[in-house]
Amino acid sequence: MQIAIVLFEHCTALDAVGPYEVLSRVPDATVHMTGAGRTVVRTDTGRLGLQVDTTYAEIPEPDIVVVPGGFGQRVHREGSELHEWLLEADRRTTWTTSVCTGSLVLASAGLLAGRRATSHWLARADLAEYGALPSDERVVVDGKYVTAAGVSAGMDMALTLVARACGVELAQTIQLGIEYDPQPPYETGSPDRVPGWAVELLTSARSLFV
Amino acid sequence: MQIAIVLFEHCTALDAVGPYEVLSRVPDATVHMTGAGRTVVRTDTGRLGLQVDTTYAEIPEPDIVVVPGGFGQRVHREGSELHEWLLEADRRTTWTTSVCTGSLVLASAGLLAGRRATSHWLARADLAEYGALPSDERVVVDGKYVTAAGVSAGMDMALTLVARACGVELAQTIQLGIEYDPQPPYETGSPDRVPGWAVELLTSARSLFV
Repeated sequence: MQIAIVLFEHCTALDAVGPYEVLSRVPDATVHMTGAGRTVVRTDTGRLGLQVDTTYAEIPEPDIVVVPGGFGQRVHREGSELHEWLLEADRRTTWTTSVCTGSLVLASAGLLAGRRATSHWLARADLAEYGALPSDERVVVDGKYVTAAGVSAGMDMALTLVARACGVELAQTIQLGIEYDPQPPYETGSPDRVPGWAVELLTSARSLFV
Repeated sequence: MQIAIVLFEHCTALDAVGPYEVLSRVPDATVHMTGAGRTVVRTDTGRLGLQVDTTYAEIPEPDIVVVPGGFGQRVHREGSELHEWLLEADRRTTWTTSVCTGSLVLASAGLLAGRRATSHWLARADLAEYGALPSDERVVVDGKYVTAAGVSAGMDMALTLVARACGVELAQTIQLGIEYDPQPPYETGSPDRVPGWAVELLTSARSLFV
């Protein structure tokens, strides 16, 4: 099984690395960190470089594609090399997936038209501009398209994907391997359950994510 | 505030990138991905390269240190450049922290003697060999030493750290920014709540982590 995790300049690190940590533990799967060129790209907060090992042209037929978000996705929504590769690759994938605002890349390619999908909470409504049906679930599976909510949701998405693609027992074993028994210190991971000031602050900083 | 996140060959990607995603969003903090040399290191599952931007010598006085785990930590437990830097840096840090088996590096340097600490569930008991007091909490704070359980626990650790170092409101805002409202698909993130076969399987693959 060939898995392509896309990297581009100013992607969000955890959008890519959360799924990586899960998917790179699937036996008989090979994960390729794939991008426009074999170089180091800087993540959106600027202080980490991730190595692109393979170019899009080198991975023409991945079984699974993962597209991360981050404000860097803005330049990939149309006419980009990523868009072109994605449209071609999607013809043969078994699963086409995204984390956070990566779903805007899929949607703007027309891949989510008429499908339920999610994104970072700050960007979820934008999916409708491309004909997708925004959902507030954390992981949305519609046919072979699997989209995750913001940033940290990529781990929940990847485990869901492993269960579907390889069986529940493998997903459960990987979850134990990475000790994914989350205990966030606060209940503030969703805009429904936080003080208004936090939502307002982040809405004013929307361009950091979308 | 200067934050050094350590990278070394065969570290676990999420151990470093989980805290990175949280800590790189702290205003007025600068995160340095720090290692033995300015090069790309490969993570433990081999399919991702992370860029070391600064050498240990360039960051002699970090306020916060984060040491990840992964089987690559085995060679850093004594007489290593990492150990030497860590012992020196720790004299002035406000927080010295670890994720997963990174705590074995701290412990083997003598920094956790007589202190409560945690690690990946497969390695927790090993802490006692170095005089630390193993705890099964997900995040353990003992003085300025903060240790996290396996892999994914680094996010819980980093948010706990931000709350202590910078205030609860910032931690809550960052948690909302990365939409950390985890919904793992299974209850198998802890060895206490999984079928015996999963624990046995991972115990037989212990060298992947410890």
